[in-house]
Amino acid sequence: MSSKKIAVVLSGCGHLDGAEITESVSTLIALHQQGAVPSCFAPTVSFEPVNHFSQKSESEKRDAFTEAARIARGAVQDLSELKAADFDAIVFPGGFGAAKNLSDWASKGSNATVHPEVIRVLKEFRSAEKPIGAICIAPTLVAKVLGHKGVTVTIGNDKETAAEIEKTGAHHENCPVDDYVTDREAKIITTPAYMYDAKPDQVFKGISGLVKELVEMA
Amino acid sequence: MSSKKIAVVLSGCGHLDGAEITESVSTLIALHQQGAVPSCFAPTVSFEPVNHFSQKSESEKRDAFTEAARIARGAVQDLSELKAADFDAIVFPGGFGAAKNLSDWASKGSNATVHPEVIRVLKEFRSAEKPIGAICIAPTLVAKVLGHKGVTVTIGNDKETAAEIEKTGAHHENCPVDDYVTDREAKIITTPAYMYDAKPDQVFKGISGLVKELVEMA
Repeated sequence: MSSKKIAVVLSGCGHLDGAEITESVSTLIALHQQGAVPSCFAPTVSFEPVNHFSQKSESEKRDAFTEAARIARGAVQDLSELKAADFDAIVFPGGFGAAKNLSDWASKGSNATVHPEVIRVLKEFRSAEKPIGAICIAPTLVAKVLGHKGVTVTIGNDKETAAEIEKTGAHHENCPVDDYVTDREAKIITTPAYMYDAKPDQVFKGISGLVKELVEMA
Repeated sequence: MSSKKIAVVLSGCGHLDGAEITESVSTLIALHQQGAVPSCFAPTVSFEPVNHFSQKSESEKRDAFTEAARIARGAVQDLSELKAADFDAIVFPGGFGAAKNLSDWASKGSNATVHPEVIRVLKEFRSAEKPIGAICIAPTLVAKVLGHKGVTVTIGNDKETAAEIEKTGAHHENCPVDDYVTDREAKIITTPAYMYDAKPDQVFKGISGLVKELVEMA
């Protein structure tokens, strides 16, 4: 069993305004199953919470770092403290937090601005030739930051999002929910998860495959 | 594969003030892996949130039902709508929500008052001889409501909590994190999960065992 160190970047807690919960937990379970040691990170970003039952915005702001601590059971560090030199690989679970708190892709598509610390860590891991995993909508972060190098990613089979991704210079490859796509040259592994109307076991299967590949490649 | 219908009772979103997230997600993944169809329920209970990083209480109240919708991706129903006749089994993930929002066991131990809807559904499932699963601290709910019938449960090996449980009339049996305890007569299955300082894959293994037994018995 490996004891590779893997950074997991969360963006809150809940798919409408933060990290998708089943994707985040699946990532942490799968990493431990592979004998890897995950460490969770999140940026301090104030956001307008969305009621996950009514789907309406709420007035009282929450913070992505503090909410991410719910998934991580308190063991979360500020994203600014993450250095590629300390880890063997990095992985980004999805959820709207990736497209609202880690970037503004949700409103701007390929014209998005990515959080500066996300840009920094993606470039650091890529420069160090350490694998990068991204789940659900999070591959848009990879496309926006590294797409000009022609990397290949998947977000499933959503034509509109795939077209936006290709505007960054990245290639998009269709992929079913329980599988993943590997760009061996750029060491980028992506899986669509809840980009489909999926069941938790399908999401867990796709993420388990991504994590196995990520840990092997690390 | 079975297509048994299983009710999952959540108590918020986050182990310090709601449902433990990894336990809840593990339950949902494992149920789908067994071919069962879970439906999530939660009571409407206002609570004082705890910052999961600082562990300090926050002033702005949240609601257990609304927060549970984060784990359930919106697919949650009020606990008052749950009828044992509509389901084959019921399972309660843990987290302090079970001991603060579904009861006040966290402050009162065996003198706790259990939420009336939790009492009702536990009695309904027991009367119908349908299996009841409980994880982490949630077996205290089963002990408090059904303990006078001499049921057997586990919360791991914590002596103080085990002693409180035995005051209800229930028997406590020690159990490691990746295993579970079955009371075949009462059809009650329990696993300790984060009653230990556990890793997510250990919690997933214990819950997967509980869920497999629960679905087979249902």
